[in-house]
Amino acid sequence: MRLTHGLHRGLQQYPDRPATIDGERVRTWRESADRVARLAGGLRWLRLSPGDRVAILALNSDAYHECQLAVAWAGAVFVPVNTRWSVPEIAFALRDSGAVMLLVDDSFAPSVAALRAAGACPETVLYAGPGPAPAGLMPLDALIAGTQRMQDADRGDGELAAIYYTGGTTGRPKGVMLSHASLASSALTSVASGAYVQPGARYLHAAPMFHSADASGWVAVNALGGTHVFVPRFSPAAVAAAIARHRVTDTIMVPAMVRMLVDSPDAVGADLSSLQRLIYGGSPIAGAVLRRAMERLPGTAFIQAYAMTEMSPVMTLLVPADHHVERLRGSGGRAVPYVDIRIADEFGRDVTAGTTGEILARGGGQMLGYWNQPGETQAVLDDGWLHTGDSGYLSDDGYLFVVDRIKDMIITGGENVYSAEVEDALAAHPAVAACAVIGVPDADWGERVHAVVVLASGASASPDELRAHVKTLIAAYKAPRSVEFAESLPLSGAGKVLKRQLRERSRTT
Amino acid sequence: MRLTHGLHRGLQQYPDRPATIDGERVRTWRESADRVARLAGGLRWLRLSPGDRVAILALNSDAYHECQLAVAWAGAVFVPVNTRWSVPEIAFALRDSGAVMLLVDDSFAPSVAALRAAGACPETVLYAGPGPAPAGLMPLDALIAGTQRMQDADRGDGELAAIYYTGGTTGRPKGVMLSHASLASSALTSVASGAYVQPGARYLHAAPMFHSADASGWVAVNALGGTHVFVPRFSPAAVAAAIARHRVTDTIMVPAMVRMLVDSPDAVGADLSSLQRLIYGGSPIAGAVLRRAMERLPGTAFIQAYAMTEMSPVMTLLVPADHHVERLRGSGGRAVPYVDIRIADEFGRDVTAGTTGEILARGGGQMLGYWNQPGETQAVLDDGWLHTGDSGYLSDDGYLFVVDRIKDMIITGGENVYSAEVEDALAAHPAVAACAVIGVPDADWGERVHAVVVLASGASASPDELRAHVKTLIAAYKAPRSVEFAESLPLSGAGKVLKRQLRERSRTT
Repeated sequence: MRLTHGLHRGLQQYPDRPATIDGERVRTWRESADRVARLAGGLRWLRLSPGDRVAILALNSDAYHECQLAVAWAGAVFVPVNTRWSVPEIAFALRDSGAVMLLVDDSFAPSVAALRAAGACPETVLYAGPGPAPAGLMPLDALIAGTQRMQDADRGDGELAAIYYTGGTTGRPKGVMLSHASLASSALTSVASGAYVQPGARYLHAAPMFHSADASGWVAVNALGGTHVFVPRFSPAAVAAAIARHRVTDTIMVPAMVRMLVDSPDAVGADLSSLQRLIYGGSPIAGAVLRRAMERLPGTAFIQAYAMTEMSPVMTLLVPADHHVERLRGSGGRAVPYVDIRIADEFGRDVTAGTTGEILARGGGQMLGYWNQPGETQAVLDDGWLHTGDSGYLSDDGYLFVVDRIKDMIITGGENVYSAEVEDALAAHPAVAACAVIGVPDADWGERVHAVVVLASGASASPDELRAHVKTLIAAYKAPRSVEFAESLPLSGAGKVLKRQLRERSRTT
Repeated sequence: MRLTHGLHRGLQQYPDRPATIDGERVRTWRESADRVARLAGGLRWLRLSPGDRVAILALNSDAYHECQLAVAWAGAVFVPVNTRWSVPEIAFALRDSGAVMLLVDDSFAPSVAALRAAGACPETVLYAGPGPAPAGLMPLDALIAGTQRMQDADRGDGELAAIYYTGGTTGRPKGVMLSHASLASSALTSVASGAYVQPGARYLHAAPMFHSADASGWVAVNALGGTHVFVPRFSPAAVAAAIARHRVTDTIMVPAMVRMLVDSPDAVGADLSSLQRLIYGGSPIAGAVLRRAMERLPGTAFIQAYAMTEMSPVMTLLVPADHHVERLRGSGGRAVPYVDIRIADEFGRDVTAGTTGEILARGGGQMLGYWNQPGETQAVLDDGWLHTGDSGYLSDDGYLFVVDRIKDMIITGGENVYSAEVEDALAAHPAVAACAVIGVPDADWGERVHAVVVLASGASASPDELRAHVKTLIAAYKAPRSVEFAESLPLSGAGKVLKRQLRERSRTT
């Protein structure tokens, strides 16, 4: 199994079917395959070797699709970078992955100077933009036009295909290594469950393509021969317009996007009746939001996924019929075929149904490990099972209920934020003596980043000042949306901050 | 991915759903998993080691299902044996696979004596029958009742799961080695295509379980959590009654079975309306038979598969909508996701659409190789592609049309018969000076085995006498249904029999 399979299949079976729709630009599978094979040739001509990493820092587009496939076609590894990250974070991912090339679009071409200044930018930077390339950047279309098609390097199965960065418990992001087989078999098994992207889908990339959730839809559409529809970034107006105009059938969103699509005045009145399946996940969805969404989209099947990049990513699905069962509210659904889910106590032993423990998962989608972090890999894959760091329980008919995260992590608007990263950034401010960062329930974002700060004796700082300081170091979405000042932090006997106590306190105030 | 996954999933998600229905006997997934885990413990207690082979010689039944899963659960390898084979052929498979155990039902318990006499029978023979076990045979139910459950040995992925025997070009059957991943990923990709066994299926084992076609349905039903319904062997009456009584939704048949189901007076009037999908393949289907079948089953989706045991087995599917397109009559359909199909000339180069060449295939379902036959394995897998030995062409939208078999093989009623086997058997008769065996078109069987015989000078033998002789050596279905006597055989310059010339002559006479 290889990620480029869909191009060969498209050429053989439906060369004239639209492969990508990006604004006014429609490209067939024949055109898509032709451009990919040329771009791969161009990348090789620029001295890309099999196994090399190519980072992509761009909004969603047909060029993103082509670049990922061209990198795979050339036998190399693509590294989608979180577009919401700060320059130091992006620089970390570029250096850590050892990327030898970087692709940017017009939104991120201006970041190249700062990345170069940070000494983290690969020499070769490709530019996928509508206008002429800025100086020193290689225009993608010229490279495609000026190069011969190369033969598919034919990488596949267990070979490394992509590295997706996620936040790290230690404050250092981790590169999740996914093979061709991880991505392909995870997509296949989700599709085979009957409640996922289906053959012939017109699939909207509404979530960012650097997320593994959207990557799973991308892999499925390539394998099944559907059509990709792109919006550069999520906005209720853009998504509603794309669904209506291109008769989109399938999409994957985080709950915050579902809420905006349903509640925004910009999306009112749009004809969304073509949408057959709306797959959502990444954080809990508020019951009221889901109800409103189901009312707004009466012909759409709702499917919830419990997913994690380390599993490529789907582990469980709550299928459409389950959405009408009261007792299943809040469940992530049941394990898809060939994914094993179990709940273990602290000694790794299975617990009985209804008992909370750590959620462990195993299956074909399992990552190869964390890039260059054997210690972190061993910590989560030691016994062959992925230790998700989430706690939860199973009903006696196999429905998973996620209770809490054991890892100190916040999921806000579908993005993972590790408390340690935010605490490190806050602690770098001279007025901060001690701090603790937790997630608190939030109607809009699932959770929001909340900081409890103890000021240094005699020092002062406003919440806005602390937020602004944090944003100079890490991505804006990681900055605390609310800050609370305290005299001290509750500590355990061992001197660890008792976050559970902080969380409980924040719920009752 | 492991074949036992479905039992774990069943226990977790739907323990009380029927897993197997065999006549009056219904067993839930909980019961099925319990029996399998006990039987696996029993097999271990009988000194079965991981990797050992266990042969199964039985008609379809729930015990067949349990035995295959128990062997996998114990970490061993199951070897389903063709029930239509002669004793020397069965003995060959037992010896060749090195089976350390044999499971028989009451239909084949009487064969044990002959297999023992041939020195080919493993010491341990298990008996799955309704009555008391014959002397020297270990009753399955007693073994299950008397043993503790063992833990799943957790074999999976690329590890050997099963050996399926097929006829050999050299007259010697070949054991096709399939891994857990071959079987699982082939089933998944067929299911993901949307036109195969689907989640929640009530699947009828109408074709023999020793065939890879039915095995694929078995794997899918286990993975998706459907219900297996068994008939011991195909008969129009039994199949029609099982469909009507158990509201069967899915089944896989060879064309000869479809014809009998549709045409037999025994099946007239049965309520077959529950049948959602009828998957057929193994040989070409006559247009008139397909038409009658579609008339008899107006609510059933017809799906044709081009399949081969060496690919676990599905390569292409002709989906229901394609059945209404005139130009696609006779096509095997298009490649399923992650299966690559190409047509190559004699030098292995791709040919253009419409040009006939050898059909090559590649994908996750590919066999590990032929058991103990590295030369034969290399001959068909040398360049990473499976050389099917069939010739065919692709339309410019990827539909496969099988034209002929390059390998000297006949497919009669869904069974592969290699000419060499039959020629060897015929040649052993003292009256036969030379012979050639070919397949000729046959309305009932797709092809029938036809022999052209040159008698030894002064000798004589009737067709019936030759047929009877052949049946003493090989399976009855391999014996020539028609015999033609000739003065000589047409030979090439190199002295090879010109079979194409014989085939053409048989068509015009």
